Amino acid sequence: MPFDILPRITSPEDVKRLSADESRELADEIREALCNLVSLRAAHFASNLGVVELCIALHQVFDFSKDRLIWDTGHQIYPHKLVTGRFEEFHTIRQQGGLMGYPNPAESDYDLFVTGHAGSSLSTVLGLQSADALLRPEENRKAVAVIGDGALPSGIVFEAMNNAAGQNSDMLVILNDNGMGICPRVGGLASYLDKARVAPFYNGLKRDVSWILNKVPGGHSVETVLASFKDAVKGFLHGGMLFEEMGFRYIGPVDGHDLDSLRRYLDMVKDVKGPVLLHVFTEKGHGFEPACEDPVKFHTPPPFQRDGENRVVKVQSASKPAYTNVVSDTIHDRMATDDKVVVLTAAMCAGNKLDRIRDDYPERFFDVGICESHAVAFAGGMAKAGAKPIVDVYSTFLQRSFDQIFQEVSLQNLPVVFTMDRAGLCGPDGPTHHGVFDISYTRMFPNMVVMAPGDAADVEPMLDFALQHDTPTSLRYPKANAEVVERVVAPLELGRAEILRWGADGTILSCGTMLATAVQAADRLQEEGLDVGVVNARFVKPLDFEVLAKAVNETGFVITLEEGVLSGGFGSAVLEAANAAGLPTHAIHRVGIPDAYVEHGDRGDLLADLGLDADGIVRTAMDAVGSRSFVGE
Amino acid sequence: MPFDILPRITSPEDVKRLSADESRELADEIREALCNLVSLRAAHFASNLGVVELCIALHQVFDFSKDRLIWDTGHQIYPHKLVTGRFEEFHTIRQQGGLMGYPNPAESDYDLFVTGHAGSSLSTVLGLQSADALLRPEENRKAVAVIGDGALPSGIVFEAMNNAAGQNSDMLVILNDNGMGICPRVGGLASYLDKARVAPFYNGLKRDVSWILNKVPGGHSVETVLASFKDAVKGFLHGGMLFEEMGFRYIGPVDGHDLDSLRRYLDMVKDVKGPVLLHVFTEKGHGFEPACEDPVKFHTPPPFQRDGENRVVKVQSASKPAYTNVVSDTIHDRMATDDKVVVLTAAMCAGNKLDRIRDDYPERFFDVGICESHAVAFAGGMAKAGAKPIVDVYSTFLQRSFDQIFQEVSLQNLPVVFTMDRAGLCGPDGPTHHGVFDISYTRMFPNMVVMAPGDAADVEPMLDFALQHDTPTSLRYPKANAEVVERVVAPLELGRAEILRWGADGTILSCGTMLATAVQAADRLQEEGLDVGVVNARFVKPLDFEVLAKAVNETGFVITLEEGVLSGGFGSAVLEAANAAGLPTHAIHRVGIPDAYVEHGDRGDLLADLGLDADGIVRTAMDAVGSRSFVGE
Repeated sequence: MPFDILPRITSPEDVKRLSADESRELADEIREALCNLVSLRAAHFASNLGVVELCIALHQVFDFSKDRLIWDTGHQIYPHKLVTGRFEEFHTIRQQGGLMGYPNPAESDYDLFVTGHAGSSLSTVLGLQSADALLRPEENRKAVAVIGDGALPSGIVFEAMNNAAGQNSDMLVILNDNGMGICPRVGGLASYLDKARVAPFYNGLKRDVSWILNKVPGGHSVETVLASFKDAVKGFLHGGMLFEEMGFRYIGPVDGHDLDSLRRYLDMVKDVKGPVLLHVFTEKGHGFEPACEDPVKFHTPPPFQRDGENRVVKVQSASKPAYTNVVSDTIHDRMATDDKVVVLTAAMCAGNKLDRIRDDYPERFFDVGICESHAVAFAGGMAKAGAKPIVDVYSTFLQRSFDQIFQEVSLQNLPVVFTMDRAGLCGPDGPTHHGVFDISYTRMFPNMVVMAPGDAADVEPMLDFALQHDTPTSLRYPKANAEVVERVVAPLELGRAEILRWGADGTILSCGTMLATAVQAADRLQEEGLDVGVVNARFVKPLDFEVLAKAVNETGFVITLEEGVLSGGFGSAVLEAANAAGLPTHAIHRVGIPDAYVEHGDRGDLLADLGLDADGIVRTAMDAVGSRSFVGE
Repeated sequence: MPFDILPRITSPEDVKRLSADESRELADEIREALCNLVSLRAAHFASNLGVVELCIALHQVFDFSKDRLIWDTGHQIYPHKLVTGRFEEFHTIRQQGGLMGYPNPAESDYDLFVTGHAGSSLSTVLGLQSADALLRPEENRKAVAVIGDGALPSGIVFEAMNNAAGQNSDMLVILNDNGMGICPRVGGLASYLDKARVAPFYNGLKRDVSWILNKVPGGHSVETVLASFKDAVKGFLHGGMLFEEMGFRYIGPVDGHDLDSLRRYLDMVKDVKGPVLLHVFTEKGHGFEPACEDPVKFHTPPPFQRDGENRVVKVQSASKPAYTNVVSDTIHDRMATDDKVVVLTAAMCAGNKLDRIRDDYPERFFDVGICESHAVAFAGGMAKAGAKPIVDVYSTFLQRSFDQIFQEVSLQNLPVVFTMDRAGLCGPDGPTHHGVFDISYTRMFPNMVVMAPGDAADVEPMLDFALQHDTPTSLRYPKANAEVVERVVAPLELGRAEILRWGADGTILSCGTMLATAVQAADRLQEEGLDVGVVNARFVKPLDFEVLAKAVNETGFVITLEEGVLSGGFGSAVLEAANAAGLPTHAIHRVGIPDAYVEHGDRGDLLADLGLDADGIVRTAMDAVGSRSFVGE
């Protein structure tokens, strides 16, 4: 299919000028561009197919060169990128140096916030609106948040609704309801929205039941009750009583693939005062049948080809087992033998490969939706009552439960196990998804035991250790294929590092799955004539002080490796331990992520850029040897 | 008033055996005990007066030796402590070594979680219930969360409600609605609850309007609509539609000071299946007139005397101005001259002394309720739109917005100012309120500038700096009287420490308000013949490397001082900087909070226990001098 309109869209102004027919044609071309993209590489797909018409209608009704728009989460941003002048570079999305797969203010003024974590759009839009109202009321800027039903249950959404209603702020929340999170949605809100979904669209229902209202007697002593009563009934008929009760005006539901209808509704709500929620029904994967049929698989599919009738003819074969698989398989095994093991996740059923656990142990599997704060406090409760909860989420998303890790787990010293997936650089998703802070933020809490498997062989013993240990524990592992470093695997012991080999010239102290790279680097250094040892740290906390002391005292240098920020990280813990014991630190060299955000791109390339590959480690080691004689310590 | 019943209550079993008259007598004695306590020292007061009957009724209806009970937040725990065998030690509450002012599992099996941060009770209770249902279903244990209306808008509450409704879990949520947070409550939920408050109690209203339902025609083609319609009307009549829509059964409101009524309702809901919310109206300060009249002032009043008619005859004079006052006064000044300055807080209007700002600049003051996550994302939005937002909350509560500091502020590099009150050990509230992690968790984020005023004289220049700087900034200061360290105050410059004096024998590098103590210690050391310099670090990030290098290279030792955890803290940042520059670190001695939770008590005593007083610093310095010759570095 040739692109006729898209190449001419240089800004939303061009979209505004399109006729109704051209607008529909634009929608087709956007879908074609999306299909072309996913034949090149993995990218967010089904959700973007679902918001094509919504995106066009929004840009036709509002003027986002001044009005405010946040997409939550940002993975539904692709059509928006296409209609805001980024069609030419669209094919670069999620590649290093190319467009980001999320909104990015550095790319376009039409992108206001990088939004990769769910739920904060209502808050930021309310902030934008409040500042606009204060600083430039004469401009009458509008404020719009588009939030998916998957993100809706995040606590911060309700915090923002409560605040917006209290302030009676002029803001429009568009609930993009596709009946799905990344996984099937869960919880009371899900049932609530499911009920709304079977109701006929607004206009129809209103006509059908308006006569009921007329039958309700008026003019009695209960007049005041009845006034509220009618309001209540009205809210109920809308299907949006929940939102009405929260103080929002609820309008909808609207068919999210009917462009004319969308424009009509958006025009209608545009100037309504106070907070409004417009309920839009979309279909995840709309316009591409296979994606509609399996929106979970097509959330971020691997590259695939289509035939002429839009059928998938070749889905790239699944990659090698990842750490994610090793962890979920191990958990599955343990659930078979230990009835106390329960698993909690926050809508990461697919991402963390928990489907088999969900299906085989439904009564011990808890997907709480995108509600990490709740998940962790819930786990604290379960641990207190004698269960063995494993909280299985991405490292970056666990940040959302920082305060619950503190109060409900660490302070109570309860044996909750945190398995942190996507720890380190997670590649094409970029900085919102890189899990680079977890070493620093877990080790600062008393009672925590912080682990990182050196390879796949460490996973099982670490999980077993965690499940029998009586304090909180965590394991971090990257989004990467599972590797096994050849060696006789040493038994796991609390606070004990595993020594792969000692070397007189120096020691590489490796945290987590940098281990294979450390071994490569040591082999290369051997060829260069340097005898460098390799240690699999295993425990960030408690650190193996004995091994550290030996490395410092008896080998030429120590290089610490970590796929995490250097501020307060593993290397910092090593410095602290060395310093507390009066050991010298001048020969300790820390390699990790410096104090800046890392962009998106291939994980291997990004690591190499940071010196976290074999080449980089060899360089660091050579520098360490070279510098040794100059340090006058 | 003599205590007749309380001394005989050794466990809730004794409470169960009381007659109705004796129960009311017990309520009076509990109030008397509360009044006696607050004549001794500052303690949570008005909220505890409000839950006396609720506490008695709960223990009479349930058996919390196996049933599960969480008080949220825990400051309403005092009556519970009195009826669970802690009357004898009650007078020790909030004193070091005495009872904690919050639930404490170390004191009693009737206290399940230490709960000082709001909102997580529903999650932990759901966790307890889920594990009980899984591991010991035959015991049929009940699960009860008591949550105040102030804590209700916390996002995690909705996350938990969503999950409980989805699981249809058997749990009872008691909404202790006293019409107040710590401050007057705010937001859409507040208006919602206010409306419920003016409605007559349940039974009455149900009778009055039941005839309306009978007038609604049935037997038509719209039967199914009507079935739901009646449900909706029923919910509306309850006043609890919001909760019903969330999937909870709503019951109430109930008079929370009518013991018989409370027991009747609790008996009724005890065996109801699925999640239930019981709405209880209480009066903050009930039974002590002055506290009812000014519940904000009597939330945690300073010690006072009563006369025979329960009038306050002497309220202890207000203490000296605290850092809190200095900060809020400075902010107030800046708001007068800069229209872009806006202030956000999370229900800490009283705690952070923001009343004057709220009253004088209502349009630029945003109290969002106990919703720290939202507050920070909201601030991000305001900053993006050109305002200069100051987020003014306690250090410990800002932990709840860790992920928003990351995504909405640091990643977007927006100039939000964080003023973190109660940073460090906050005294009698204990570990839930100590703000000891903030240095570590703020400095790990790129783009952040992290400051700590050395004394009151630093506050104004730091705030001015923060308000004109174009990246996120933070200031931390303790719950302490404002001090001024005598000196010619050096102008504030980004990343520059202030040198009070150099000393050949060593340098005390002081972070924040440890400065006065550092000067005292240096003076004492001078008397001992040691010439020790004092540096006011001012910036944790970026660190003043020049000063650090000079201190390391030209003075005998460096002692870093911080009122925060050593893991990843200020001293750790110093080690990192020294190490990165190839400086030796063996003469750097870090003094701060070790890897364990610090109990409640007088702040000065707690600091002394940790070596964070002049004595401790002198000891550290003497040790440093003594050890110098033995280190072979």
